[in-house]
Amino acid sequence: MRRIHVIGIGAGDPDQLTLQAVKALRDTDVFFVLDKGEAKADLVELRRDMLRTHVPEGTYRVVRARDPERDRSAGGAAYSPAVEDWRRARADIYERLIAEELGEDETGAFLVWGDPALYDSTLGILEEVLARGTVEFTYDVVPGISSVSALVARHRTGLNRVARPVQITTGRRLAEGFPEGVDDVVVMLDAHQVFRQYADQDIDIYWGACIGTPDEVLVSGPIAEAAPRIERLRAELRERKGWVMDTYLLRRHPKE
Amino acid sequence: MRRIHVIGIGAGDPDQLTLQAVKALRDTDVFFVLDKGEAKADLVELRRDMLRTHVPEGTYRVVRARDPERDRSAGGAAYSPAVEDWRRARADIYERLIAEELGEDETGAFLVWGDPALYDSTLGILEEVLARGTVEFTYDVVPGISSVSALVARHRTGLNRVARPVQITTGRRLAEGFPEGVDDVVVMLDAHQVFRQYADQDIDIYWGACIGTPDEVLVSGPIAEAAPRIERLRAELRERKGWVMDTYLLRRHPKE
Ligand SMILES: C[S@@+](CC[C@H](N)C(=O)[O-])C[C@H]1O[C@@H](n2cnc3c(N)ncnc32)[C@H](O)[C@@H]1O
Ligand SMILES: C[S@@+](CC[C@H](N)C(=O)[O-])C[C@H]1O[C@@H](n2cnc3c(N)ncnc32)[C@H](O)[C@@H]1O
Repeated sequence: MRRIHVIGIGAGDPDQLTLQAVKALRDTDVFFVLDKGEAKADLVELRRDMLRTHVPEGTYRVVRARDPERDRSAGGAAYSPAVEDWRRARADIYERLIAEELGEDETGAFLVWGDPALYDSTLGILEEVLARGTVEFTYDVVPGISSVSALVARHRTGLNRVARPVQITTGRRLAEGFPEGVDDVVVMLDAHQVFRQYADQDIDIYWGACIGTPDEVLVSGPIAEAAPRIERLRAELRERKGWVMDTYLLRRHPKE
Repeated sequence: MRRIHVIGIGAGDPDQLTLQAVKALRDTDVFFVLDKGEAKADLVELRRDMLRTHVPEGTYRVVRARDPERDRSAGGAAYSPAVEDWRRARADIYERLIAEELGEDETGAFLVWGDPALYDSTLGILEEVLARGTVEFTYDVVPGISSVSALVARHRTGLNRVARPVQITTGRRLAEGFPEGVDDVVVMLDAHQVFRQYADQDIDIYWGACIGTPDEVLVSGPIAEAAPRIERLRAELRERKGWVMDTYLLRRHPKE
């Protein structure tokens, strides 16, 4: 029976690998590397470095495939036809990789950025491939340090305040309004710096870009004060690297 | 200058240590182990095993102290006088440990269960000690795999669904009502199996106790079906070990 490890590799710092992840890397015959286009080539490079560092040469194969770009022009609904097409195209690729590149008794692995549990499609796609019933395999998941954990560790703060909840959401959702019932909100996948919408409120931001990498930048403070610095640093990074990944925690002060 | 590492050690599986955590362990002169009473002696034991496995003998000291029990009889408000007393008593202990047990040029460490960012008081206490101004030190935080990440990895599911938010909260909060604006809710610190309150709704539960340890138990399914099994397994564990730690994800089905 084919086996697959879905391995969380941390969000940028190669030392964020867990011992369990290293063991899973060493247990793998075939690594599937999905390439998201030239701009993020350094993310592919980081995965290759991890393999070179932790797995004896000659004990594994690397199979690269091109991850289909999602057609974002069609707008943002989670289940639009464009998104459905994209999911199907990705499932086709995973199905083919597993059926054709992995021997019946071999172990394959997908190396997932951060924690596979947060805003990542790998588990959903594997379930979709299994549901098709064309290729049989088992899989397990190795949790990883998410960019969320990495962010607050670098800022030396907690996610929640004592006995209170925290929400993790997307930039798109935050644009629709500040989430109800929480004063601590982590925002991912925000291409538009939506936090600026809340600059008139008594909210602190803990922001980080390229966390864990040599390009890491951190800014914290009241949104109104921090926003101009974040805008400038984010633009500089984007200019220099061609892309930028950032995450932030918004912490609203309780009303007196 | 005294230095301190706050090291997340994962939520039960010793292989959930990150490489960064192992480096921090090896960089430490004095480990502070806070003992929470006899019932949880195996948690202290796990920390000792980690040191024996990863740090050369004779290169470090272990200083044990008794973590004051919180007086829970006074009720549950986050900032009640009882909680304030308890926080002050803990800060007194940390202050004394750092001032008296750590040399001026030494590095100390606190080994924190899971991720120091989630429902843990260590960072808050260190800030309180620093604010007193009686002893100077710097500190950094090494993120860890939380019980939340470990839970969903074992269930091979994500925390969030595509493009949607997730909230992390406490049993006490869940007892006040299902959080607004989210359909995916992770619950920690629930001594009363509050999920049973929602058994009449179309909600799936992904539950785990002692995740990552040899005693791990997992149950998933619609709350109404899963609840009796969870009650039984939880009672058995509690009986056998004297205590139990459990966490769960509630996933509400969207209204048609
Ligand atoms: C598709 S999601 C994947 C998240 C990933 N599974 C995790 O656990 O961090 C990508 C988003 O994660 C965040 N992110 C990932 N790596 C990051 C890093 N090194 N620094 C800052 N944000 C990061 C950004 O918000 C980005 O938009
Ligand atoms: C004081 S909080 C500390 C959480 C920790 N910092 C973390 O990141 O997991 C303790 C709660 O964490 C959860 N927990 C910790 N370890 C666990 C485990 N091995 N299995 C299940 N739940 C666990 C339980 O909900 C427990 O009530």
